[in-house]
Amino acid sequence: MRFFSDNAALVHPAIMQAIAEANAVDAAYDEDTLSKLLDAAFGEVFETEVSVIWLPTGTAANSLALTAMCKPHQGIICHREAHIELDEAGAPGFFTGGAKLMLLDGDGAKIAPDSISAHFESIRPDVHQVQPACISITNASEYGLCYSPGEVAEIGELAKTRSLGLHMDGARFANAVASLGCDPADVTWRAGVDALSFGCVKNGGMNAEALVFFDRDLAGDTLYRRKRSGHLQSKGRFLAAQLLAFLKDDLWLKNAAAANEAAAIIANAAEARLLYPVQANEIFLKLSKAEAASLRTAGFDFYDWGEGAARLVTSWHHTPKDVQPLAEALAAL
Amino acid sequence: MRFFSDNAALVHPAIMQAIAEANAVDAAYDEDTLSKLLDAAFGEVFETEVSVIWLPTGTAANSLALTAMCKPHQGIICHREAHIELDEAGAPGFFTGGAKLMLLDGDGAKIAPDSISAHFESIRPDVHQVQPACISITNASEYGLCYSPGEVAEIGELAKTRSLGLHMDGARFANAVASLGCDPADVTWRAGVDALSFGCVKNGGMNAEALVFFDRDLAGDTLYRRKRSGHLQSKGRFLAAQLLAFLKDDLWLKNAAAANEAAAIIANAAEARLLYPVQANEIFLKLSKAEAASLRTAGFDFYDWGEGAARLVTSWHHTPKDVQPLAEALAAL
Amino acid sequence: MRFFSDNAALVHPAIMQAIAEANAVDAAYDEDTLSKLLDAAFGEVFETEVSVIWLPTGTAANSLALTAMCKPHQGIICHREAHIELDEAGAPGFFTGGAKLMLLDGDGAKIAPDSISAHFESIRPDVHQVQPACISITNASEYGLCYSPGEVAEIGELAKTRSLGLHMDGARFANAVASLGCDPADVTWRAGVDALSFGCVKNGGMNAEALVFFDRDLAGDTLYRRKRSGHLQSKGRFLAAQLLAFLKDDLWLKNAAAANEAAAIIANAAEARLLYPVQANEIFLKLSKAEAASLRTAGFDFYDWGEGAARLVTSWHHTPKDVQPLAEALAAL
Amino acid sequence: MRFFSDNAALVHPAIMQAIAEANAVDAAYDEDTLSKLLDAAFGEVFETEVSVIWLPTGTAANSLALTAMCKPHQGIICHREAHIELDEAGAPGFFTGGAKLMLLDGDGAKIAPDSISAHFESIRPDVHQVQPACISITNASEYGLCYSPGEVAEIGELAKTRSLGLHMDGARFANAVASLGCDPADVTWRAGVDALSFGCVKNGGMNAEALVFFDRDLAGDTLYRRKRSGHLQSKGRFLAAQLLAFLKDDLWLKNAAAANEAAAIIANAAEARLLYPVQANEIFLKLSKAEAASLRTAGFDFYDWGEGAARLVTSWHHTPKDVQPLAEALAAL
Repeated sequence: MRFFSDNAALVHPAIMQAIAEANAVDAAYDEDTLSKLLDAAFGEVFETEVSVIWLPTGTAANSLALTAMCKPHQGIICHREAHIELDEAGAPGFFTGGAKLMLLDGDGAKIAPDSISAHFESIRPDVHQVQPACISITNASEYGLCYSPGEVAEIGELAKTRSLGLHMDGARFANAVASLGCDPADVTWRAGVDALSFGCVKNGGMNAEALVFFDRDLAGDTLYRRKRSGHLQSKGRFLAAQLLAFLKDDLWLKNAAAANEAAAIIANAAEARLLYPVQANEIFLKLSKAEAASLRTAGFDFYDWGEGAARLVTSWHHTPKDVQPLAEALAAL
Repeated sequence: MRFFSDNAALVHPAIMQAIAEANAVDAAYDEDTLSKLLDAAFGEVFETEVSVIWLPTGTAANSLALTAMCKPHQGIICHREAHIELDEAGAPGFFTGGAKLMLLDGDGAKIAPDSISAHFESIRPDVHQVQPACISITNASEYGLCYSPGEVAEIGELAKTRSLGLHMDGARFANAVASLGCDPADVTWRAGVDALSFGCVKNGGMNAEALVFFDRDLAGDTLYRRKRSGHLQSKGRFLAAQLLAFLKDDLWLKNAAAANEAAAIIANAAEARLLYPVQANEIFLKLSKAEAASLRTAGFDFYDWGEGAARLVTSWHHTPKDVQPLAEALAAL
Repeated sequence: MRFFSDNAALVHPAIMQAIAEANAVDAAYDEDTLSKLLDAAFGEVFETEVSVIWLPTGTAANSLALTAMCKPHQGIICHREAHIELDEAGAPGFFTGGAKLMLLDGDGAKIAPDSISAHFESIRPDVHQVQPACISITNASEYGLCYSPGEVAEIGELAKTRSLGLHMDGARFANAVASLGCDPADVTWRAGVDALSFGCVKNGGMNAEALVFFDRDLAGDTLYRRKRSGHLQSKGRFLAAQLLAFLKDDLWLKNAAAANEAAAIIANAAEARLLYPVQANEIFLKLSKAEAASLRTAGFDFYDWGEGAARLVTSWHHTPKDVQPLAEALAAL
Repeated sequence: MRFFSDNAALVHPAIMQAIAEANAVDAAYDEDTLSKLLDAAFGEVFETEVSVIWLPTGTAANSLALTAMCKPHQGIICHREAHIELDEAGAPGFFTGGAKLMLLDGDGAKIAPDSISAHFESIRPDVHQVQPACISITNASEYGLCYSPGEVAEIGELAKTRSLGLHMDGARFANAVASLGCDPADVTWRAGVDALSFGCVKNGGMNAEALVFFDRDLAGDTLYRRKRSGHLQSKGRFLAAQLLAFLKDDLWLKNAAAANEAAAIIANAAEARLLYPVQANEIFLKLSKAEAASLRTAGFDFYDWGEGAARLVTSWHHTPKDVQPLAEALAAL
C-alpha cells in the first residue's frame, strides 16, 4: 500500500472515459467546444459567473493567477512553507518577472490575519522596499489543515483594505470543501478570493487543473500569458474533458470525501502521534526510525518527514477496507 | 473534410492505448519508469546518446531549447515567419528573459547560409548591440519545405565557427524525415543540431512533445526550468507513454508518410496553383475567393492565406481515398 | 575638430556650475529639494502638469517609459533603425520582461502613419500573436529628421484609436524643437505623446536625462522601477541641478540652436552629398574612402557610415567659426 | 548636525576637482582613457589583476555582480536584513530574472558559516526546489559590524565546496578595511570573494561606485548587462574620474578612517546604550522617545530605529570636534 502522494494516483475511470470520448472530434483552439463549457460548469459549482482556464499543472495555475495580480516589482504574501515558495522551483519569480514572495510564519502552514497585519506594518511605504500586491493561501494547507469560510473572509477583508488580490492555491480544494462541508462559494469569492487554483490531478485527474477567476477582469491577459508560457494546448479538449467529468455528479467531492475518510481512519488509529489535526487527506505523525522501518516491512510506503516523523497521503481510490491494515499496524506499534 | 491543421487531428489509437495502459501504475516523478525509457528509445532512433524531456507543447519545447542556448542579453537568429516569431505569443522572450529574435528573410520560410553570414556582418561586436547566441531553423519549414542534411550542415558549420548553438523546431520533423528519406541523425546532430523539438501532437499525439538534446550538457538546467515554467507533470508517465508508442514500430514515420502522401495527391491535382513545392504535409495554393467558396460549399474546410490564397494541411489519418474528392474538386476548378 | 558624436562633448559651464552649487547641501532622497523643483520647471516649458524623473542615460529613460506602457507579453511599434532597437543592447526587452519590438520601415528612420496602420492589419487579434501596446518614435530621428507637430499628431491619433501609448525618444528633442520652431507642447502632449525622454547629455549635460510623463498616471510605478533598476541615486540632487540649469533661460534651446546652425553650415557646403536633409545636428553624406582620408588628414574626425558614406555630428559648443574650415574642406573636395 | 546617512554627505573636494578636470576632454565610450585606468588602479589596491566597471549606484553594482553569478532559476544566500533584500526594491529579482534570495538569520546582520551549512542541508537537491548559486555578505554589515579576513575565508571555503560564487556588498568596504586594519586583498579575493561592490558614494563620491571582479571571467557578460540595464554612460569619464581620485593617496581609507573615528567618539560617550559594537561608522543605540526629542531639540538629526532606538551615521567630513557636542549631549542624557 502506497501513501506517498495523491499526485501519483491512478486516474479515475470516469475521467479516462471522458478523455477517450474527446477523441471523437478533431477540434483545436477556438473550435474546441468542450473548453467553452468550462465557464458555465464551474459557474454552477460556485453560483456566480467565473472565467476558467485549464492548465496542465498546479504550478502553472498558481503562477498565472499570481502574475495576474502582481506586477514584477511587487510582492506576494504567503506562508513560509507554501507550495509556491518551497516546491515550485521559483515558478512565481519566473512568471511574474521577479516579484518577491513575502514569507510569514503560522501553525500548520496557515497564515493568520494578525501575521498579515504585522507584515503590513513592517514595510515602509517608500520606493526602497517592495510593496505587496496580493496574498496567497493554500486550502487545504500544506499540512492538511482547512481555512474555514470565516477565516478566509478575515483575510479577504484585510486584502480589500489594502487593495490587494487574494489567491487560493486549491491543489486540495476538494478535500477542504469536503471536510468543511461548506458551499464552495462561501470559502472562495464570498470570502474575498479573486482567483482559485482548483486542483484535479491530485484527486483523480490526469493532467488538467482549473484556474478559476472570480475577478473575471484578470482572465484577459492570462489567456495571452498561458500561450506565452507554452501552456496553450491545441488539443485542449482533452483537458476540458477531464475537468467536466470531474465536476459531473460531484465526482470531485466524492473523490475527496473518500480520501478524507481514509485519512480519518488512519488518524483515529494514531491519534497520539499526530503532529497536526487531520482535516483533509494528509497525515503527519511522529514515527521513530524503527517504527517506520517496521511499517515498511509490513508493506506500507510513505515519505519520512524530517527526523522522527512521517507524512502519509490518502487518495480517492483508498477505501476504508484498504486502509484498515495500516490503521491496525499503527495502533499496534 | 477538414484541412485546417494537423494540430487538431484525432489521437492515434496506438497512442490512446498507451495512455490507457499507463494508468495501470501509480508513479510520479522519480518513480516514473516510463519517462526513464525515453533517452534510450530516442537514442536508438538517432543512433547516439541523447537526453530527452517530455513537454506538453511545441512552444514549451522550443522555448526551453532556446533558453538553454541563449542568455537573456543575447539573440536568436531565425526566419521572419518562424513559428517562434509569429505564433508563440512571444514565448521565447518570456522564457529567455528578453532575448532578441533576429529575423532573416528567405524563400519558403527557410533561411539560407548567405543570409546568416550577412547578418553576422551587420552586427557591430560592441556592447551597444545584441550579439547572437544561437540559430533556430524549422524542419519542415512553416511553408512545408524541408532542409536537407546538406543544407542543415551548412548552417551547422556557420554556427560552429561563431560558437553558436543550433536548434531545430521539428513540429513536423517526422514529415521532413519521411519526405527526405534520410537517417534522422543525418539531418540533426551529424549536421550540427544541438537540440531538436521533436513533434508528436501534430502527428497523432495528444499532448506530448519531446525535447531532444544532442548536446547533453544543455539538459541539466532545463530540468529546473521545466519545473519552474510549470511544465513538470506529476503524472508525466502519460506523456512518456505517448512518445514511446509514437516511436514504436516507426509509428511516427508511418503517420508522417501517410500525411505526406495525402498532401502529394492534392498537390499533384493543383500543380499550377502551388505557391511552394509540396515536400511535406502542407499545401499553399492560389485560390480566388469564388473558388474557395465553391470548395467550401462542396464540404472542404481550410484556412485562407491572405488574399487569393489558401493553406491546406493533411494529417496522419488522411488516406489517399479520403483526399481524392478534394483533388478532383481542385482539378475541376 | 571632432564630429564623432554629441554624446562625448564637454559639459556646458552653466551645468558644471550648477553641479558645484549642488554640493553646498547634504540631502538625499526625499530631502532633496532640487529634485522636487523638476515637475514645475518642466511644467512651465510644456505648459501643462507633468511628472518628471531624472535618470542618468537615455537608455534608462526610454526603457522605463516603455515599461510604463507595455506589459511583458505585449509589443512596441518602432522604426527598424530606432535607437531602442539597434543601440541599447536589448534594454527594452530587459526592462519590460520580454516585450517585442515590432519593426517598421520608413525613410530617414521616421515611421509613417500608413506603415503603422498596415502593421495593425498584419496582426491577428488572437492569443498566438503579440499585440502592440505602444508606439515609440524618435524626434529628431536617428538620421536627424524632425517629426512636425502635425506628423506626430497623426501618429497620436492612430495610437488613440487602438488605446496604445505614445512614447517619444527625445535624445535630441531640443534640436528638433529648435529646428521646428514650434511650441514644445505642440510636438508632444498636444499631439498625443504620453511620455518623452528629454535629452540633456547630448546637448551639454553630464549624466542627467529627464523622463517626462504627460500621462502622469504612468509615473507612480516608474518610481519603484527606477529604484529596482539601480537608477535611484542618493545624491540625485546633482542630476536635478543639471536639468534645472539646462532649462534655465532656455539653455537647452540655445545649445541646440548652436549645434543645428553649425550643422547647417556644413550641410550647405556639401549639399550635393547629403543622404538626408539636415534638419537638426546630424549630417549623413556620401564620401569616398579617399575623400574621408583626406578630411581626416586635414584634422577632421568622424565616423564612417557603411561604405562610401560618413556621419558627422555637431554639438552645442561648435561655433560657426569652428566649423567653417570643415565646410570649406568639404566644398573643396 | 545631521547624522541621517553617509549617502547624503557632501562630495569630497578632491573628487569635485577630478570631475571638473574630466571636462577638459570630449571622449566617450571606447575613447575614454580615464575608464581604462581603473583596472590598473584597483589592481594596485588589491595586489592582483582585476576587472573593474563603474556604476552610478550600489544597487546596480550589487545586482550586476549577483547576475554574473546566478542564473534566473537559482538562489542567492544572504542575511535577512541585507541591503539587497530590504532596501533595493527587489533589484536582484529584476536583474537576475527572478532568482530567489535565501534569507538567513545572524547577529548584527552578519551570517555565520554554521547558518550557511544548515541552509545547504535544508534544501532537497531536486528540481522542485531552488538551488543556491552564490552567497552575498555585506562588509561592513548593515549594523556596522565587520567580517574579519578569517571570517570571510570561512564563508569562502564553504562557497568553494559547493561551487558557489561569493559576493561582497562593500557599500562601506572602506570603513571595514579602515576598521580591520587589514590588507584589502586579505578580506576579499584571498578569502574567496569573487566580486566586490566597492562603495564610493557613501564615502565622499558623487555618483560612482566600482564593481570589482576578482574572477575576471565574470566581467565579459556584465559589460553587456551594464548597457542593457541603462547604466553605460557616454560620459563615463566623470565616473572614472571620481573613482581614480578616490583611490589616489588613499583618500578612500582616509575618509573612512575619519568617519570611523567620529563614530567611535560618539560610541564611547554612549557605551551603555549601544545595540551593537561600533566597528565602522554606524551607531545603533537605545534611545527613548523623550531622549530622542531632547537631542533633536539640541540640533542633532538622525533616524529612529523602531521603538526606543536610533541610528546615527557619521561621514567623511565629521571631525572629532564636530561630533564632540553630540557625544557630550549623549553622555549627559
